[in-house]
Amino acid sequence: MGRQELAYPKQPYSTVKRYDLLASYELSTIHTIISTSPMVNVSFIDPSSPFPTILPMIGALGSFSRPSADITDVQDLYLHGYISSRLVNQSRSPSQPEGLPVCVSASHVDGLVLSLTPYSHNYNYRSATLFGHAALVTDPDEKLFAMRLITDSVVPGRWAGSRTPPDAGEVASTGVLKVKIAAGSAKVRVGGPTDGKADLADEALRERVWTGVVPVYTVYGEPVASEYNGVERLPGYIAEYVADVNEETRRQAVEAATKEVPKKVVDDDDD
Amino acid sequence: MGRQELAYPKQPYSTVKRYDLLASYELSTIHTIISTSPMVNVSFIDPSSPFPTILPMIGALGSFSRPSADITDVQDLYLHGYISSRLVNQSRSPSQPEGLPVCVSASHVDGLVLSLTPYSHNYNYRSATLFGHAALVTDPDEKLFAMRLITDSVVPGRWAGSRTPPDAGEVASTGVLKVKIAAGSAKVRVGGPTDGKADLADEALRERVWTGVVPVYTVYGEPVASEYNGVERLPGYIAEYVADVNEETRRQAVEAATKEVPKKVVDDDDD
Repeated sequence: MGRQELAYPKQPYSTVKRYDLLASYELSTIHTIISTSPMVNVSFIDPSSPFPTILPMIGALGSFSRPSADITDVQDLYLHGYISSRLVNQSRSPSQPEGLPVCVSASHVDGLVLSLTPYSHNYNYRSATLFGHAALVTDPDEKLFAMRLITDSVVPGRWAGSRTPPDAGEVASTGVLKVKIAAGSAKVRVGGPTDGKADLADEALRERVWTGVVPVYTVYGEPVASEYNGVERLPGYIAEYVADVNEETRRQAVEAATKEVPKKVVDDDDD
Repeated sequence: MGRQELAYPKQPYSTVKRYDLLASYELSTIHTIISTSPMVNVSFIDPSSPFPTILPMIGALGSFSRPSADITDVQDLYLHGYISSRLVNQSRSPSQPEGLPVCVSASHVDGLVLSLTPYSHNYNYRSATLFGHAALVTDPDEKLFAMRLITDSVVPGRWAGSRTPPDAGEVASTGVLKVKIAAGSAKVRVGGPTDGKADLADEALRERVWTGVVPVYTVYGEPVASEYNGVERLPGYIAEYVADVNEETRRQAVEAATKEVPKKVVDDDDD
């Protein structure tokens, strides 16, 4: 790399408090976890409800003012899903001129980490959290930009591969939120199990309890054509994407299972 | 079934506002989605932060006072993960005698639903949301009950298959939250793509744009033994669980891809 990695500022609400060796504030790490998750979790506060809310939505990172920005750069997060009237009203509230404060998260489980004792069981995982302010996108050009980003986040090339551009009615009735990101963090756990010294020294225990990692990954299966599909052969951009995802998710899970556990984490686990 | 299905009360904050045919308030549906998710998302409000927070945690349903309660019954949700001091302080705050209000969610993506136009693209998915009050479990017997539930939620039988019971120090330093559930809801989308009448009538379009579903499912891969593993053969309870999960997740995704879309939803999509 020819330049310094960008990182989000550590804020009191965004700082990972434990296992600090696993924490990352780098944009590229956080953005990659968010971008490779088909759905993200969006939490916001509705003053009329006694509970916070989590909505599953589709999230896509991009920059309308600087479309060449990539995953290592400052970007906005565009969210698509069912935008409830309470979400809209709140993101427009004059009491929150910056927009509605939201927390957006995504987690990938890469493996079940089975150790000698339940206490030290764990997951291999990658999780990312972003904090920011959400507002409805109203500019039609920006909305179109976001709709393309979101569609291509489901299958790259799908925008060009389907009936586009959407008509004015479709654009008007599509709700897109834009999150200006204030801070973010990621946590990543890799490696095999760890156990305390006493358990490790107990040979009978080690011969009785299987220890290791069950890799966990997402698979994209054989595409199923719709009843009204009129295309005989699955287009290459879909077939290639399915193959790429399957190779990458499996590689990530198996690599995580066989990587060394960072030293600092072993010590923490041993507490 | 010999009796009526239990359902959570519809509350203003828990009622699914759109695609109401897909909504469910039945305990069995909601609990199954939560139980089959290796991680859940827990959202809570920290008055010292401008944003809500989402933490990924392990969730397991159970009833300490009535251990025979199953997934169709009223249960509590036990949560395990990194319990930050702000989470502890808040769940003990005298201003919230019922506990800390939380929202817990889990989502499974079952397929990418590719239609003629980006506007009608969708996912097949199952998502569940629970609302309730969280408090730290302090009773050692209940904590032990919860630790067993949580361990067996990772791999059924793992508690009996590993070094148990944990010693007093392990129990003391394990943080478990118990959520008393106040309400919940689920949303489920199944079926192939749907498109508007004009697009469907456009034969050239149907011959140009591939439509259908890419099934998405989670796979548990070949277990990788740890460096200090002393058990030659993978125990049956792990091998069977891996095989069961793989069969079930794949079945669910393929079945969702080939199911009929509920009529009401087709009409809504057509708006």
